[in-house]
Amino acid sequence: MRDEATAFVPGHITGFFSAHPASDPTTAGSRGAGLTLTDGVEVTVEPAADDTSTVVLDGETITVEPVETVLETLEVTARVEADSEIPLGSGFGVSGALALGTVLAANHVFDRQLSRNELVTIAHGAEVQAETGLGDVVAQAHGGIPIRLEPGGPLVNKLDAIPSRARVEYVTFGELSTAEVLSADTDQLSAAGKQALSNVVEEPTLLSFMYASRSFAREAELLTETVAGVIGDVTDADGQASMAMLGESVFALGTGLSDAGYEPNVCATHPAGAFLK
Amino acid sequence: MRDEATAFVPGHITGFFSAHPASDPTTAGSRGAGLTLTDGVEVTVEPAADDTSTVVLDGETITVEPVETVLETLEVTARVEADSEIPLGSGFGVSGALALGTVLAANHVFDRQLSRNELVTIAHGAEVQAETGLGDVVAQAHGGIPIRLEPGGPLVNKLDAIPSRARVEYVTFGELSTAEVLSADTDQLSAAGKQALSNVVEEPTLLSFMYASRSFAREAELLTETVAGVIGDVTDADGQASMAMLGESVFALGTGLSDAGYEPNVCATHPAGAFLK
Repeated sequence: MRDEATAFVPGHITGFFSAHPASDPTTAGSRGAGLTLTDGVEVTVEPAADDTSTVVLDGETITVEPVETVLETLEVTARVEADSEIPLGSGFGVSGALALGTVLAANHVFDRQLSRNELVTIAHGAEVQAETGLGDVVAQAHGGIPIRLEPGGPLVNKLDAIPSRARVEYVTFGELSTAEVLSADTDQLSAAGKQALSNVVEEPTLLSFMYASRSFAREAELLTETVAGVIGDVTDADGQASMAMLGESVFALGTGLSDAGYEPNVCATHPAGAFLK
Repeated sequence: MRDEATAFVPGHITGFFSAHPASDPTTAGSRGAGLTLTDGVEVTVEPAADDTSTVVLDGETITVEPVETVLETLEVTARVEADSEIPLGSGFGVSGALALGTVLAANHVFDRQLSRNELVTIAHGAEVQAETGLGDVVAQAHGGIPIRLEPGGPLVNKLDAIPSRARVEYVTFGELSTAEVLSADTDQLSAAGKQALSNVVEEPTLLSFMYASRSFAREAELLTETVAGVIGDVTDADGQASMAMLGESVFALGTGLSDAGYEPNVCATHPAGAFLK
């Protein structure tokens, strides 16, 4: 057993998606596409001092169901300490990052000898089960600008990517509950998501990704008034912006939000998937 | 059309492999496992001044068949300029890096709008056709410590990875011809490669990868006297070393070669696959 291990997991903004439920959480998931980000979450795992696992995010003890599931699956009790550059519940994949970072670091600390695909499968299944996300974990394990062609964990899914990179700006106005959106009727959302995916597969470029994301946000009726206003401001300034799924957040390529007069967080797409530090 | 684009491709050391020929070069390939390296190749592509493509590696104009094939497939003429931190023909995947870096950068410069899987498929097929490698390209596109479970390009293959990272040392004594080894009888080699793969799948750790690589090098009868001597020296100094496939080169984890009194190149495993800079 090692003293501790630390993993970095990039943030992930989903631009559009379709939901694909299944009874097995490791085969359930989503199709779609998104941007992984240099802003992410650093997760450090060490053996727990007693028989209770704890999760501390940015200095505060919290309960994160997917992390608990991951630790139970690996049959370990651990202290998980995470520092996040991205806000929780706002469409940046923090819960996925916590699950994935925990499973990578815990496998190392407790010498569980699982393969990368096995670890990603565990984190993905835990996230789906908790209804905190459907596609963040596999995207965050991949890095870059992943296109999720087939849903599910790495043993069943199919990924491609947009071979590009970009500076990314984002602002956030509040939380949206992924579980709430996903428990509602998702037929219209999933139809819009499939159309968006087909457009991006046809032309796998950043620009077509932004177009597809905006159409999706509109057609899936997920835009809040605030978010729609900001996207409009960026468009007026000749920029490309859309809504982060699922949060009350707007992301833009290049200097889109700055040009429109906002003071955004600035990062870039992240070439690598989650890794041990 | 852009003025130019630059891609970085990590080096790749194959520890063991089995050859899987096929009439279609995009489905042919190898099973096996290896380390991608922070030492790699930077490839810059710009439109050619006239109707002739040229390739310049470390200041010298050379002919690299897979690069020519890649440019022909994209229907472009380009000047390709590459700077390599790793030696050509010595088992570090330079030819794969040149093909993969060229396809990624050329797609960007000439706005070919292909997906990442399509680009990797083109580079992989070009490399297989030229008999300069069977698995480097897909490993270099993946990053980390990839396990190639099923052969071929990204449309047909299956990858996993060892979820770890390491400092890597290497020394090189000369070239081995990949084409020559692969054109000989590969039955014994492939039997040894399959056994090695099965051991690493059973226990996907760095240590089992090094054991499997050493057994493979011995059983496939690829060890030269020099290489066998160096590996022995590292073992005597309680280190882990094996032979880079296919080159007269030795790689070691941590400080294995330094501890044995050598003056190796030093790098680390590379968390990301090839990416545009």
